[in-house]
Amino acid sequence: MKAPKFKPTEAVLSGETADIYFAHTVEILRKEGLNPVATMEVFPSRAGILCGMAEVKALLGRVLPEGNREVWALDEGDAMDAKEVVLRIKAPYQSYGLHETAIDGILAHCSGWATAARQCVEAAKGIPIISFGVRHVHPQVVAVMDYAAMIGGCSGCSSIAGARLAGIRPSGTMPHALILIIGDTVKATLAFDKHMPPEVPRISLVDTFKDEAEESLRVAEALGKKLQSVRLDTPGERGRVTADLVKEVRVRLDLAGFKYVRIFVSGGIDPERITYFRETGAPVDGFGVGSYISGAKPIDFTADLHEVEGKPLAKRGRTPGITPNPRLKRIM
Amino acid sequence: MKAPKFKPTEAVLSGETADIYFAHTVEILRKEGLNPVATMEVFPSRAGILCGMAEVKALLGRVLPEGNREVWALDEGDAMDAKEVVLRIKAPYQSYGLHETAIDGILAHCSGWATAARQCVEAAKGIPIISFGVRHVHPQVVAVMDYAAMIGGCSGCSSIAGARLAGIRPSGTMPHALILIIGDTVKATLAFDKHMPPEVPRISLVDTFKDEAEESLRVAEALGKKLQSVRLDTPGERGRVTADLVKEVRVRLDLAGFKYVRIFVSGGIDPERITYFRETGAPVDGFGVGSYISGAKPIDFTADLHEVEGKPLAKRGRTPGITPNPRLKRIM
Amino acid sequence: MKAPKFKPTEAVLSGETADIYFAHTVEILRKEGLNPVATMEVFPSRAGILCGMAEVKALLGRVLPEGNREVWALDEGDAMDAKEVVLRIKAPYQSYGLHETAIDGILAHCSGWATAARQCVEAAKGIPIISFGVRHVHPQVVAVMDYAAMIGGCSGCSSIAGARLAGIRPSGTMPHALILIIGDTVKATLAFDKHMPPEVPRISLVDTFKDEAEESLRVAEALGKKLQSVRLDTPGERGRVTADLVKEVRVRLDLAGFKYVRIFVSGGIDPERITYFRETGAPVDGFGVGSYISGAKPIDFTADLHEVEGKPLAKRGRTPGITPNPRLKRIM
Amino acid sequence: MKAPKFKPTEAVLSGETADIYFAHTVEILRKEGLNPVATMEVFPSRAGILCGMAEVKALLGRVLPEGNREVWALDEGDAMDAKEVVLRIKAPYQSYGLHETAIDGILAHCSGWATAARQCVEAAKGIPIISFGVRHVHPQVVAVMDYAAMIGGCSGCSSIAGARLAGIRPSGTMPHALILIIGDTVKATLAFDKHMPPEVPRISLVDTFKDEAEESLRVAEALGKKLQSVRLDTPGERGRVTADLVKEVRVRLDLAGFKYVRIFVSGGIDPERITYFRETGAPVDGFGVGSYISGAKPIDFTADLHEVEGKPLAKRGRTPGITPNPRLKRIM
Amino acid sequence: MKAPKFKPTEAVLSGETADIYFAHTVEILRKEGLNPVATMEVFPSRAGILCGMAEVKALLGRVLPEGNREVWALDEGDAMDAKEVVLRIKAPYQSYGLHETAIDGILAHCSGWATAARQCVEAAKGIPIISFGVRHVHPQVVAVMDYAAMIGGCSGCSSIAGARLAGIRPSGTMPHALILIIGDTVKATLAFDKHMPPEVPRISLVDTFKDEAEESLRVAEALGKKLQSVRLDTPGERGRVTADLVKEVRVRLDLAGFKYVRIFVSGGIDPERITYFRETGAPVDGFGVGSYISGAKPIDFTADLHEVEGKPLAKRGRTPGITPNPRLKRIM
Amino acid sequence: MKAPKFKPTEAVLSGETADIYFAHTVEILRKEGLNPVATMEVFPSRAGILCGMAEVKALLGRVLPEGNREVWALDEGDAMDAKEVVLRIKAPYQSYGLHETAIDGILAHCSGWATAARQCVEAAKGIPIISFGVRHVHPQVVAVMDYAAMIGGCSGCSSIAGARLAGIRPSGTMPHALILIIGDTVKATLAFDKHMPPEVPRISLVDTFKDEAEESLRVAEALGKKLQSVRLDTPGERGRVTADLVKEVRVRLDLAGFKYVRIFVSGGIDPERITYFRETGAPVDGFGVGSYISGAKPIDFTADLHEVEGKPLAKRGRTPGITPNPRLKRIM
Repeated sequence: MKAPKFKPTEAVLSGETADIYFAHTVEILRKEGLNPVATMEVFPSRAGILCGMAEVKALLGRVLPEGNREVWALDEGDAMDAKEVVLRIKAPYQSYGLHETAIDGILAHCSGWATAARQCVEAAKGIPIISFGVRHVHPQVVAVMDYAAMIGGCSGCSSIAGARLAGIRPSGTMPHALILIIGDTVKATLAFDKHMPPEVPRISLVDTFKDEAEESLRVAEALGKKLQSVRLDTPGERGRVTADLVKEVRVRLDLAGFKYVRIFVSGGIDPERITYFRETGAPVDGFGVGSYISGAKPIDFTADLHEVEGKPLAKRGRTPGITPNPRLKRIM
Repeated sequence: MKAPKFKPTEAVLSGETADIYFAHTVEILRKEGLNPVATMEVFPSRAGILCGMAEVKALLGRVLPEGNREVWALDEGDAMDAKEVVLRIKAPYQSYGLHETAIDGILAHCSGWATAARQCVEAAKGIPIISFGVRHVHPQVVAVMDYAAMIGGCSGCSSIAGARLAGIRPSGTMPHALILIIGDTVKATLAFDKHMPPEVPRISLVDTFKDEAEESLRVAEALGKKLQSVRLDTPGERGRVTADLVKEVRVRLDLAGFKYVRIFVSGGIDPERITYFRETGAPVDGFGVGSYISGAKPIDFTADLHEVEGKPLAKRGRTPGITPNPRLKRIM
Repeated sequence: MKAPKFKPTEAVLSGETADIYFAHTVEILRKEGLNPVATMEVFPSRAGILCGMAEVKALLGRVLPEGNREVWALDEGDAMDAKEVVLRIKAPYQSYGLHETAIDGILAHCSGWATAARQCVEAAKGIPIISFGVRHVHPQVVAVMDYAAMIGGCSGCSSIAGARLAGIRPSGTMPHALILIIGDTVKATLAFDKHMPPEVPRISLVDTFKDEAEESLRVAEALGKKLQSVRLDTPGERGRVTADLVKEVRVRLDLAGFKYVRIFVSGGIDPERITYFRETGAPVDGFGVGSYISGAKPIDFTADLHEVEGKPLAKRGRTPGITPNPRLKRIM
Repeated sequence: MKAPKFKPTEAVLSGETADIYFAHTVEILRKEGLNPVATMEVFPSRAGILCGMAEVKALLGRVLPEGNREVWALDEGDAMDAKEVVLRIKAPYQSYGLHETAIDGILAHCSGWATAARQCVEAAKGIPIISFGVRHVHPQVVAVMDYAAMIGGCSGCSSIAGARLAGIRPSGTMPHALILIIGDTVKATLAFDKHMPPEVPRISLVDTFKDEAEESLRVAEALGKKLQSVRLDTPGERGRVTADLVKEVRVRLDLAGFKYVRIFVSGGIDPERITYFRETGAPVDGFGVGSYISGAKPIDFTADLHEVEGKPLAKRGRTPGITPNPRLKRIM
Repeated sequence: MKAPKFKPTEAVLSGETADIYFAHTVEILRKEGLNPVATMEVFPSRAGILCGMAEVKALLGRVLPEGNREVWALDEGDAMDAKEVVLRIKAPYQSYGLHETAIDGILAHCSGWATAARQCVEAAKGIPIISFGVRHVHPQVVAVMDYAAMIGGCSGCSSIAGARLAGIRPSGTMPHALILIIGDTVKATLAFDKHMPPEVPRISLVDTFKDEAEESLRVAEALGKKLQSVRLDTPGERGRVTADLVKEVRVRLDLAGFKYVRIFVSGGIDPERITYFRETGAPVDGFGVGSYISGAKPIDFTADLHEVEGKPLAKRGRTPGITPNPRLKRIM
Repeated sequence: MKAPKFKPTEAVLSGETADIYFAHTVEILRKEGLNPVATMEVFPSRAGILCGMAEVKALLGRVLPEGNREVWALDEGDAMDAKEVVLRIKAPYQSYGLHETAIDGILAHCSGWATAARQCVEAAKGIPIISFGVRHVHPQVVAVMDYAAMIGGCSGCSSIAGARLAGIRPSGTMPHALILIIGDTVKATLAFDKHMPPEVPRISLVDTFKDEAEESLRVAEALGKKLQSVRLDTPGERGRVTADLVKEVRVRLDLAGFKYVRIFVSGGIDPERITYFRETGAPVDGFGVGSYISGAKPIDFTADLHEVEGKPLAKRGRTPGITPNPRLKRIM
């Protein structure tokens, strides 16, 4: 995955998405003729994986005056501690005051997603994780959400927009709808195989009409070597996918000679569930994770002024002056 | 607040934000010549306040064929039960199959925000709640988030974009940055008063440099009758805003003759905290709520096919055929 | 169910199954020439359903001297309180001292089973319970266990011996073994139908090879009106029988015209599980309960002397003299 | 203890104690002319001490055809894991199908008892445990219960029948009844001493009429060197036997010169209680354990077919084919 | 009980027992020539029974200038709420500033004891409580502790000094030491009876050498009608006094014709234990309570200035001006 | 701190503060002519720091006959185990029987305070602890309480009487009352500085009127090098003193050049709170501890006779004879 190009939207640049009081503040300072060089530090409320910094940098590159700015930051994807300063901006306040909302918001939402993804990746200890959760977020943030999941360590994502932003190919299997409309899992899989280009892996969803183990054998027999995986997605009404089901499907596939067919598991997957499959020895070859990543709580970020015209200061409750953090790198 | 106009973006209409497998599905069905009239039902995983339906309706209005569609739904802002069908679409599958991701995602994210807002509103029992949390979400969803908070019952919101979408004026006080740059709370409040148009209420933030009670009296003396409120936002490092602090500030303001000055409280506010203030009798006149609303977990929605060409069916774990719900209204 | 005839075995009458120290005691007293009329009271350690009294009465009828005995007791199947006296024997001590072990043991084991059965029956609020647990107890107590389950309120039991003792016909469906050997659920059900007399209800076990819902429809189509029930017994490895599964099978049977086919549920059933099915509205027509009843902990009984030759006495910790209990009836 | 001789009863051999559906199954298969060689595996639901295998072996020796049978098993008394195969039978199904109930039941009940006994023995770390619980089970299983307790590691048991089966002498002290009838602990102990043969140890029960410490000294003075032990059995109404009581009785006996008298403790003893005595340093010389062993919950066993005529198969939820277990030994 | 006469000691009047900084404060104010009329309010940190006010009043009567003082207070023994003002002093600050330590301390310690006593009295619902705890406090506060227990509702107390202060006769039974030295409970009780004046009730302690029930009968037989009570004080090493023991002793006394002998219980008694005896129906005629009352945590009191020379003021965290409390009565 | 001189009061010597039954006992024994040499052992109910032994020794020195006494004890301030014998008295019983109440009471109350103090000292790991709690105890025990706190390891105490007993100078800062009356923290601190002798450290209380950080800077600027410390005592109504507040005040003092000013913290301090400050790295230079020490629950002590005229004996529940404890030293 190579670094994507972020472009600030007009709504952000104009302050349309900002808190109104920042617009008021900049207006008042302008009318008062005040535009001091101010140093703002940004830190998260809890530990996690930093994400969104690339987009924030693109924004700052547009708004800070080139000759009078210093910006230090951690890298996209870095681990960060609770209350660790991850970004320091030193520039005339009027140039960036309006954008505190956007800076905090981008980092909060993206770091929340990336951190949740990382938790799944760490629980999986090498088993690939695919981000499957775009259906739980607003379409406007689909791309950044899947991008953040990739920054967190996912091996793929299901949205076209997210994959484009992350510079990869989207991952997909088949939905229940296709099978319900065609009326049979084997027929649907054969149709999929007939019309999809060869680079799209054949992954058959095997819980729609029949028992998962029975259906797995049916599609394996129908597609033979072309079948890459079966996907188990048993709904909660049927007891969810259990470790025992995965083992049984594996044994039945192996007994019938389909050792090459992989097993992909989805449906309510989270780190606890991943750990359960791993610790019970279920032979899972890949997990699809939905709302655990896409519905992750954003990590609140706070931005504080710590110097104005070189003079250390801070609001009550914070300590005046620059907060030392040797991990920060000058990026601008 | 009047109903806003939602316009689907090109990225949504083109399927760019969709899961890739829906794009595959529509392509396969088209190549197979299959386009049955299919009935899809959408339901939430947990109870809450439905939000996003207006935007979903705008999308369906663009994609469903006018002569061959039936759509039933609950209203924007309706309470919904866990697993209650809130939307039923009957139309040729190819017309909407690609949009399942967007439909689910809009409802999930917006209902999550609206539900959290409603919880605050119910806890507050009449004390106004202002949505203050845009800094915790990506700028791309600032407007829909604040709109959803309004649907949930908030009395105002802080973002310009959200207020515009909801058809109201944005609410704002003043940030610590203004006071830190000007160097004194009273001076900052006087500057605010000098430059802001009269319709913007004068709400002074009183915890930046001095004790909140002392500062409240100072700004009240400086602005007199023009001061509408003081905002208490004591940080966690200083023990947060307590009910006792609110009571004390109230008594000190009253003793000094400033009974008309209201007290607005922010900082880590959630339903539990609102209840604490209410039950201890703290005279709060308004709450600013941030990440409890904006960081609310989306409510997962699921879309299932229940009929194809008039024939009841369902995947394993679901019951075939239309799910009766007399609350649904035909909207298209 | 009519009262069964219990006959004490030789091992019990001879004291072979007794604690050795009772044999010693009777021997010592005999050698000392002591055989006072003594009053012994028996009480349970916890509340429950009294069972085993019929068998105890048969034993006492054999050992107590006819002209010098008084016995008071509660009835078989009566509810009893913790520490309530359920049996009082007044007779020459040598006639019954040896049998304290057997009296306590019969009551303990049988009351434990009956009490557990009653808990299931009460949870089921009218849905029949069949005792299915003989495979969890030693064959020597199969008959008394199933008899006790019937006393506790079960509608039937699976063992031949238990049914004979209780004076009913045994209840049975079909085991997985039959289906595995014949190789198909439908064929096995047809063979069952072919060879079994008409009074044996046709209850097909539908989780052996295929999805339960699919299999239910297959056997219903094959047997038509002759099919009385399907039995769901999904193992834990497949998520157990869930309320949703029962509902789904019901709907699918109904949609296909098999409204008369009943649904019988087994596998890990206990009062908590029964309550779960009832409270979630799952249309269960009967439950098979195994180890919750048959593996129930015996209710400890204690036998204390309270009078010797008309003189009240008791060991330390107990109160001397007869314990009044108006519920006791003279039975001998 | 030497291996006992188990003889299957007629009720078991005839299938009288079996589940009715096994009788049905064998009848149907016979009428269908089906008698395949089938492989059945038996495993417990939880870990424990295997017991009952000797009795099961005696049963299988009677029913399996000598020329066409293979049986593998763990040994009586072996530790077993949850779900570990402890018995595998390969033989014509009609020969043993009827006996699945008895096989499971014998193993379930006996392994439950043996496992509970083992837990006490392990907690006691060398202090002998005597099984005292026959009064809590039905007389029909007194012998197998005490036998199982011995398999679990008990040093003795109180029932005549159990001791006979286990090939040992039964253990006994004296009951409260003896003392209450004779009217004084010292007199009762002297009578015991007078009439019992010398090989029966003199163990006096010292809590009937007087303080345990006082009574211990009285019986020690009366019997002198002939007194082997005192038994403390203080009832719950008097605070149970405490570690401090044991220590105090020990000190008072020692001060009076009765260092050789041992202290035996009974009454509500279980592993937790044994650990309490051990960890507080109470000088207990032996424990009598009642309902913790005799009222132990049976360990559920399951029997599954895994091969029919050499073909691997299994019901849904289980894996087809033989389950490897190198610990199994061929016993038939 | 009539109101006692409290006399402030010289150590208190001189400020010897005060916090040094109050001595400094009064010295500084005197040197600065500042002696304003100041209003101090005193309130407890938690709810309870107010005690110590009589002693505080005696102190204030000595130090406040007669012509320039106003004092309002609740009554000795009144219930008070958490943070309720229980005392308000308006007088020249130099007259009482030094005594804040003593005022708080007297109220804190005495209210702590009285509140604990009240909890026992309320739990006992009419059964008399005797304060038995002087051995757990320093002799210097024995008298005030027992006095406070009486204010809390005790029916008697064991210390001579406390009884004198409270104007009653002290309550006593006999200690273990008397019995151990005389060597037998009956002999000790007879000696007690021989030497004590008739107005001292004969209460025999019955757990020293023998079983409590046995000993109770022995002393009852020895003293006949002169025996008022037996005291049960079984130590923890012997399982404490249980409800069952009380019942058993009652029954055994009654059976032997000693219905008039009362049962008095001591040893680790607290409200929870009292409730246990009451709820299990144990026929206790009196409780001796020790460290639950005498070791009660003092209730912290705080004294705040709320007016100086008529001007409302308060430190941060408190509200300026007089706190209205209509329950206060002017006492000076 | 050097060993203080304790003098028993007349009330103690006369038995006025004793339990009445000890007075009765001594009277009965005298009338019976019984005055055996008896050995009494005293032990605590829980582990802690022994305190009060010096005062007990002074009492025993007055009452035991010089030629016929042996006393063994642990030292003042020694750690003691639960149930460890800390004092053994061998003397004619009439000489000390009356004083059991006082002996137990002195040890109980003083050891309770010393133990609580020690817990604070251990939690503080070298940061000095000052006993500030005299306002929570009755003035009669102020001196012994503060003395016990010093024995427990405190570095100072606030009461004049306690400091005198412990042989040190009392510690004090300034109360809110001084500041409220003078009307400004800086003015009050200057007045303090003007009138107090130089050996009294200048410690300014900085939370009365203004923000603690602001006030700290104001007093530091006003007093310069003469200011030793600021005291933070933020009340609960304002969120208590937090670790972050301490850090912030430190940084603000340091930035302004007042690195030499120490920070002293009080208000609800206990070991848990001390640990919190330490573990979060708050730069606290001293703690004032109030009710955690002064309101500590007394440690119950029990006194038992173990020998009478050389003969081992004990009440039920205790073991007869001397309890060996090599840590005891002969002190008389």
